[in-house]
Amino acid sequence: MCRWLAYTGSPLLIHDLLYKPTHSLIVQSLSSTMGAEPTNGDGFGLGWYGDGPTPGVFHSVEPAWNDRNLSELSAQIRSSCVLAHVRASTGSPVQQTNCHPFRRGRWLWMHNGMINGFHEAKRDLALAVDPSLYADIEGTTDSELFFFLALTFGLEDDPTSAVSRAVGFIEETGHRHGEPFPLQMTVATTDGTSFYGFRYSSQGRSRSLFHSTDVSTLRQQYPDNALLGELSDDARLVVSEPLGDLRGAWREVPEATCVVIRGGEEELRPFAPAALQPA
Amino acid sequence: MCRWLAYTGSPLLIHDLLYKPTHSLIVQSLSSTMGAEPTNGDGFGLGWYGDGPTPGVFHSVEPAWNDRNLSELSAQIRSSCVLAHVRASTGSPVQQTNCHPFRRGRWLWMHNGMINGFHEAKRDLALAVDPSLYADIEGTTDSELFFFLALTFGLEDDPTSAVSRAVGFIEETGHRHGEPFPLQMTVATTDGTSFYGFRYSSQGRSRSLFHSTDVSTLRQQYPDNALLGELSDDARLVVSEPLGDLRGAWREVPEATCVVIRGGEEELRPFAPAALQPA
Amino acid sequence: MCRWLAYTGSPLLIHDLLYKPTHSLIVQSLSSTMGAEPTNGDGFGLGWYGDGPTPGVFHSVEPAWNDRNLSELSAQIRSSCVLAHVRASTGSPVQQTNCHPFRRGRWLWMHNGMINGFHEAKRDLALAVDPSLYADIEGTTDSELFFFLALTFGLEDDPTSAVSRAVGFIEETGHRHGEPFPLQMTVATTDGTSFYGFRYSSQGRSRSLFHSTDVSTLRQQYPDNALLGELSDDARLVVSEPLGDLRGAWREVPEATCVVIRGGEEELRPFAPAALQPA
Amino acid sequence: MCRWLAYTGSPLLIHDLLYKPTHSLIVQSLSSTMGAEPTNGDGFGLGWYGDGPTPGVFHSVEPAWNDRNLSELSAQIRSSCVLAHVRASTGSPVQQTNCHPFRRGRWLWMHNGMINGFHEAKRDLALAVDPSLYADIEGTTDSELFFFLALTFGLEDDPTSAVSRAVGFIEETGHRHGEPFPLQMTVATTDGTSFYGFRYSSQGRSRSLFHSTDVSTLRQQYPDNALLGELSDDARLVVSEPLGDLRGAWREVPEATCVVIRGGEEELRPFAPAALQPA
Repeated sequence: MCRWLAYTGSPLLIHDLLYKPTHSLIVQSLSSTMGAEPTNGDGFGLGWYGDGPTPGVFHSVEPAWNDRNLSELSAQIRSSCVLAHVRASTGSPVQQTNCHPFRRGRWLWMHNGMINGFHEAKRDLALAVDPSLYADIEGTTDSELFFFLALTFGLEDDPTSAVSRAVGFIEETGHRHGEPFPLQMTVATTDGTSFYGFRYSSQGRSRSLFHSTDVSTLRQQYPDNALLGELSDDARLVVSEPLGDLRGAWREVPEATCVVIRGGEEELRPFAPAALQPA
Repeated sequence: MCRWLAYTGSPLLIHDLLYKPTHSLIVQSLSSTMGAEPTNGDGFGLGWYGDGPTPGVFHSVEPAWNDRNLSELSAQIRSSCVLAHVRASTGSPVQQTNCHPFRRGRWLWMHNGMINGFHEAKRDLALAVDPSLYADIEGTTDSELFFFLALTFGLEDDPTSAVSRAVGFIEETGHRHGEPFPLQMTVATTDGTSFYGFRYSSQGRSRSLFHSTDVSTLRQQYPDNALLGELSDDARLVVSEPLGDLRGAWREVPEATCVVIRGGEEELRPFAPAALQPA
Repeated sequence: MCRWLAYTGSPLLIHDLLYKPTHSLIVQSLSSTMGAEPTNGDGFGLGWYGDGPTPGVFHSVEPAWNDRNLSELSAQIRSSCVLAHVRASTGSPVQQTNCHPFRRGRWLWMHNGMINGFHEAKRDLALAVDPSLYADIEGTTDSELFFFLALTFGLEDDPTSAVSRAVGFIEETGHRHGEPFPLQMTVATTDGTSFYGFRYSSQGRSRSLFHSTDVSTLRQQYPDNALLGELSDDARLVVSEPLGDLRGAWREVPEATCVVIRGGEEELRPFAPAALQPA
Repeated sequence: MCRWLAYTGSPLLIHDLLYKPTHSLIVQSLSSTMGAEPTNGDGFGLGWYGDGPTPGVFHSVEPAWNDRNLSELSAQIRSSCVLAHVRASTGSPVQQTNCHPFRRGRWLWMHNGMINGFHEAKRDLALAVDPSLYADIEGTTDSELFFFLALTFGLEDDPTSAVSRAVGFIEETGHRHGEPFPLQMTVATTDGTSFYGFRYSSQGRSRSLFHSTDVSTLRQQYPDNALLGELSDDARLVVSEPLGDLRGAWREVPEATCVVIRGGEEELRPFAPAALQPA
């Protein structure tokens, strides 16, 4: 059910990020080791920030492991903020509009997990989306609807609060439809300046999530590691699975936690759904 | 903005239907002469009735003129009820879930035209869909939402009344959003037994629609015509554009008309939107 | 490196064949257990014989496990001779022209395995193809070139001899280029009347291949098995992997063997490459 | 039968180049006015030079007019040397490996036109390709084979001479197969430093080709033109069709001519096929 990677730091060739590590996201598309499913072959997506007013996105319905365009493009583009996602569909069609990351203005969003009982709850969730945003929903995934709920609850102004309220609303809606554990999620979202990663599930058994540790220390420990050599001191990675088995390079994000990365500093905060107030 | 073809009659090789006529639907995909746009290259779809409990559908995002699978499949399948559609998108993404014909149970639906001001009216239209059907909407087109409104208003029980009420509702909703001419449509829908074709637009300037005339008379007039030779006496075609220039073979469906074909007999009835009753 | 299935017998709904078994070919596309690779997601293909002068083929670059068109089409078509193939590319691009089965006239061909050192030997192999056939090669796989060599050596007249000579030629060419084990193969080929399956490799360690045993006996043993109930007594299956764990249902095809199925009877013959005569 | 565009000059946002002009290449994909066919919807390709050792290429089988990835990517990438191509297939399959521009090392190649009688001549042409290059042919078009012949005849060392010899060889081969006018071509090729454009056909009735005139003069004449404002003085465009109707902006490349652009200077030279010497 999907694997993803987020990078912030000095501009890096995206190809190095996606293909170079031993257990790269491309490798994970064919054989993930910590995911709910080993194969994440139902399309993929890439989002990156450059000079333009909005980030670029590239979506494809083909498996990432064999997509020549992804290899070509990533070999030409450097970026200081990159999100990449390989998808294992939980039922919705394999089409570009269902590929992550989703975008609105300067914001990107990607999700690993699912809304349980989505078919039953879908209409209620969709009705809660701000009416001015509703018609801009392009695909049919639970993940994109989750994004639009977060936007509705103020993602662009106060991201952690908005996600907290969206999660609360999804859980409440799911419970009303008889779903005991409505949400399973790791989420990445950013405006290109601040990055937010979330690990949470209603059941308290969330999908895996890791963040990188201090790069400068690692570089001293492993002077021969090629990827480390290319990373700046403020580089930070948040990933569904470690990109390799370099001891000390990865730290698990705890259950019910939000990772905030800004200006090369990361901060871990407890995360909990917000109880909704009566409207 | 799309061209389509509907056939009912004795079982015919679909390939003969799609490729053989001089001005076939495949030719129209590349160079339609009566459509709003000459090119209908944004995917296509095929629906046909066979032995199974539901009709088969084949959807592709590639232009019909060069799709090898369409040519292959149609050369193997005979059917006595076939719907085919070539698409020119009016904005929604080119993806299989946006390809016509749409299906629910034994019903197929295809549409040429558009809901004007769809972006503004979309939420109101979607909310009117029967809540038990809402989550089954798979794509993002105005055409599929139109289908779901018709289903909501009773398509499976009384097709002409349901379409009439759906059209009334779409017009009323459009007017409320300030759209003077909310709907442009030719529609084909069938359960494999009875066929219904509609030509209507709010402005009274509808897209072209034609139906075939009596096959037996034509066959006497043109004994050398290959396609005619293959058609049974009860064969009927309803098409966006005549498939050839055989004089006398095609009759224009008048504005604001519904064509009903059942048991090899066609009937033309006036069509008008239903004014909606207060719920 | 690919998995395949071949069926001959009384007409069967292709959907039942592809999707119903516990360890169906569709399941194998996502998680093969005996293949060189677990994932066979680089496109797929279907070939079947119907009324037409040539068999139909359907090729797609999407993974079989999520292809809606495959599910739709197979649910509408019955056939008494079906070949199906899920692909794991060994390097050549994922495109329809590289999907098996390949077709020429009434003959279909599919291959699991590879020509080792193909890049080095390709030109020599291509030059050996009958000049009148050369321009009809549509893709870039070793498998299709192997088919064209078999055609060149007389596949349509004497299949086992032609394959034997093609294998001999490929091995000789490979050896000349310094490749110790030039060929790894299981091959299925048929004209819709007689079926030929081959298991062979230069190294004597061939990919897995199985054939079904007597259906009537099995049906008595397992009266509740749904698939068995649908198979006629003369039904025969040849598969890369058993489609389920029904004890006694599958027999391994020995190394260096050709299975010939005709009129509901199978025959196993030793298979060896032919030493080439001087031209 | 295809339309293309080549740009050299100061780095320009590719999106501006492809989408901004009134009669842009994207517009031409749907409705070319000077091409052999109005629709060029059988895939497209983009090649551009950046920091990397080789140029990037992006190939898609979808029509350019509706491809979201093309719009996204081109909005993020600036380049000082860009080739773009929209395809109308003359028979070979619509697949990425048949999309232009083709690449080898630092060289890109694109072609509008066709080798007449290609099916008959294909084997002879393929055999003439340098054996060390043969296995790297990835697709099945006449255009790519033409590129490989030019490479064989020394494209990387002396481009005009190599193309001249390749054309001579193609014509000689075609004549031997009874084809009176074997070649129709406009060709663009570059290593990112020097650009070569060719207009030629065996019949002397070549596809249209134009080059831009002096930008600084134009800018004075049309101070309000947005695209001109973005172009540097050394910017040069070579195109199948003028990108707009700005009087004085475009000059037709004469029949049988080669345009060479280097360091912001263009030079027009007569072009003729080379008679081949006995080997």
